[in-house]
Amino acid sequence: MSVDYDKSKNILHASDLIKKASGSDVIMLPEMFCCPYNSESFKMNAEDCEGGVARMLERAARDTGAYIIGGSMPEIENGRIYNTCLVYDPSGKPIARHRKAHMFDVNIKGGQCFRESDTLTPGADATTFDTPFGRFGLCICFDIRFSAFIHSMRGIDFLAVPAAFNMTTGPLHWELLFRARAVDEQFFTFGCAPARDEHGSYVSYANSIAVSPWGRVIARAGYDEEILSLNVNVNEVGEVRQQIPIG
Amino acid sequence: MSVDYDKSKNILHASDLIKKASGSDVIMLPEMFCCPYNSESFKMNAEDCEGGVARMLERAARDTGAYIIGGSMPEIENGRIYNTCLVYDPSGKPIARHRKAHMFDVNIKGGQCFRESDTLTPGADATTFDTPFGRFGLCICFDIRFSAFIHSMRGIDFLAVPAAFNMTTGPLHWELLFRARAVDEQFFTFGCAPARDEHGSYVSYANSIAVSPWGRVIARAGYDEEILSLNVNVNEVGEVRQQIPIG
Repeated sequence: MSVDYDKSKNILHASDLIKKASGSDVIMLPEMFCCPYNSESFKMNAEDCEGGVARMLERAARDTGAYIIGGSMPEIENGRIYNTCLVYDPSGKPIARHRKAHMFDVNIKGGQCFRESDTLTPGADATTFDTPFGRFGLCICFDIRFSAFIHSMRGIDFLAVPAAFNMTTGPLHWELLFRARAVDEQFFTFGCAPARDEHGSYVSYANSIAVSPWGRVIARAGYDEEILSLNVNVNEVGEVRQQIPIG
Repeated sequence: MSVDYDKSKNILHASDLIKKASGSDVIMLPEMFCCPYNSESFKMNAEDCEGGVARMLERAARDTGAYIIGGSMPEIENGRIYNTCLVYDPSGKPIARHRKAHMFDVNIKGGQCFRESDTLTPGADATTFDTPFGRFGLCICFDIRFSAFIHSMRGIDFLAVPAAFNMTTGPLHWELLFRARAVDEQFFTFGCAPARDEHGSYVSYANSIAVSPWGRVIARAGYDEEILSLNVNVNEVGEVRQQIPIG
């Protein structure tokens, strides 16, 4: 999804895209779909779990009858800002909230620098939720680098990751980490990223991706906005775990 | 290294190859370099830590002045057979012994099947040892799939892995796992495999590999016997850990 500077426009645009994906069982938005990815923007656009983002996601879930994994937004509570993903079931009920647990503080020589911890507070926990299709794990972007954290969610069938890698870490590590986690834990991994805006202060690598428990890339977007749609066979999770037993 | 059916020939051949690699600081042999990789062969060729393999490795260390990571051999103790790697320092002193901790029991539909646990007993521990160049972690082949096991060795600079993936898991997972562990733990990974023998009962994927802490493949062999030689800059370990702090 392309992300604009205007939060209301982003919320409406996300709502339209979800409508277009109607008919899907599960729909995921990218990390920080409602505002540009930078520290000032987090402060300016932070809202609580009853705000415009939450209301749009709730309604979109009811309208489409899908589980909605609401990318992420800057969530404010008691003066603290979190990078938060809200999940709604098809009745519009909120069933999970993940606060990004690992702050993206990197300083790569000749490459990307960013300090989420300048403005954001980390969450404490890994997050899972159940659907009729299987159990989901949920984390946000930098969280995926922490193998022990991901391992703590074992038993899940799918790992959903709203994320926004950049033009340094994306080419180096994006596909690698989604494939690695899939093979280590033998589940599907799904990454959903904002579209690339070369003029943004933070340039998203984009490349939304889906990987099977065998570690095969089964769907991949480019760098422009698009709806990446796929069917998966959850039985593959059990098959891999039986054939290469490492659990 | 090519592996023959005759243990004595393999031991002599390994000794010759180590001589050719003389001048290196650290020299590693592949998993089961002294006998073919199959259950009968493990039983027939098992020996203790004072046998021909150990004596050759000890002498090769003294002769070359290198640390020798002795691939692996079927080691017998009290009637139990282990898949064991012995490590010697340049004075010929044994400084580490790793017994493969995770048995390679796979049954891949239309692909590789094997049950190490039919003949072998697993070791209990992860293994590390120190050199003037940095701290090494040591594991064998299937062990590398276990992210928590590898994570338990944190603080190491290099992960050395005698290994023998096959023609099913090799193309799917060999490079992926060496890159994944390097990026997860931010150290160098080195994998050393037997050369490919299409007529063997177990066909090694070969492709010995070295990966930097950034996750870049920095050296890679083909499928024939060869000495894969490289220089690494251990400072990269600290640089990556500082620039992408996930420790």
